[in-house]
Amino acid sequence: MAIEIERKFLVTGDGWRGQGTTTRFRQGFLSTDKDRVVRVRIAGEKGTLAIKGRNRGAARPEFEYEIPLSDAQSLLDTLCMPPILEKNRTVIPQGEVFWEVDEFFGDNQGLIVAEVELPHEDHPVDLPDWVGQEVTHDRRYANSNLVNYPYSKWNQSE
Amino acid sequence: MAIEIERKFLVTGDGWRGQGTTTRFRQGFLSTDKDRVVRVRIAGEKGTLAIKGRNRGAARPEFEYEIPLSDAQSLLDTLCMPPILEKNRTVIPQGEVFWEVDEFFGDNQGLIVAEVELPHEDHPVDLPDWVGQEVTHDRRYANSNLVNYPYSKWNQSE
Repeated sequence: MAIEIERKFLVTGDGWRGQGTTTRFRQGFLSTDKDRVVRVRIAGEKGTLAIKGRNRGAARPEFEYEIPLSDAQSLLDTLCMPPILEKNRTVIPQGEVFWEVDEFFGDNQGLIVAEVELPHEDHPVDLPDWVGQEVTHDRRYANSNLVNYPYSKWNQSE
Repeated sequence: MAIEIERKFLVTGDGWRGQGTTTRFRQGFLSTDKDRVVRVRIAGEKGTLAIKGRNRGAARPEFEYEIPLSDAQSLLDTLCMPPILEKNRTVIPQGEVFWEVDEFFGDNQGLIVAEVELPHEDHPVDLPDWVGQEVTHDRRYANSNLVNYPYSKWNQSE
């Protein structure tokens, strides 16, 4: 088990484009219960199964296992709750940390968020000029929530 | 992915005791949704994560992965829905098939079921004289159901 410490921000500029390395992600969920999220992901050609517990501050217990690509495809196509999330993840190094910019497609088109994984909760972060409001604690932006309440529907209920 | 074909019976006699090989199981669930059950199990010293889809007749899609024992312990102790199931599984060979006798403890004390895994749905089975009623299609006996509705509570609601 790893303890994952992440902060999440909305992306407000285009300064990140053309930087880093971009990979296509498809992911779905077997459980969106926030005490025990179970995620299936294909990142490029790699399949993984991840289990995440409830957030405690910015920290979160996480277990992740590589699984055969064909299993990940079957799980996404037949067992995960629809719809399957599609996004491009761009990983951009900044000093000793990495920014991950997620640009969503499909029902979440228009949403772009950036996450930075930190060695401990109080680690200082230099914010790039293309990030805006912090949304670390806003459950709406959790990927497991974007399945049931996609970004395209948010304005309708506000 | 494997397709699992199993038939399940109540155990009515003691003729199985002293046969085969017995292993202690601890298992819990990250999802009990019958379309996407996610099970964590420790069998002896081996940890596994399994994902099962909905039954179609006696057949059921199943994905199973070995995980580190320490991960399985953490998942059972911190992330699975309580309570954790405890049972002894005794595997008894019979010709080309294997009977698995599960004797439950804790809140499911008194329940003993036997499962036989078959190469195809219509494969003939010789029933040992210690099995009784078939419960293959009775959801109450699903292990994922025994977490929320343990055997000790059944009489109270009938």
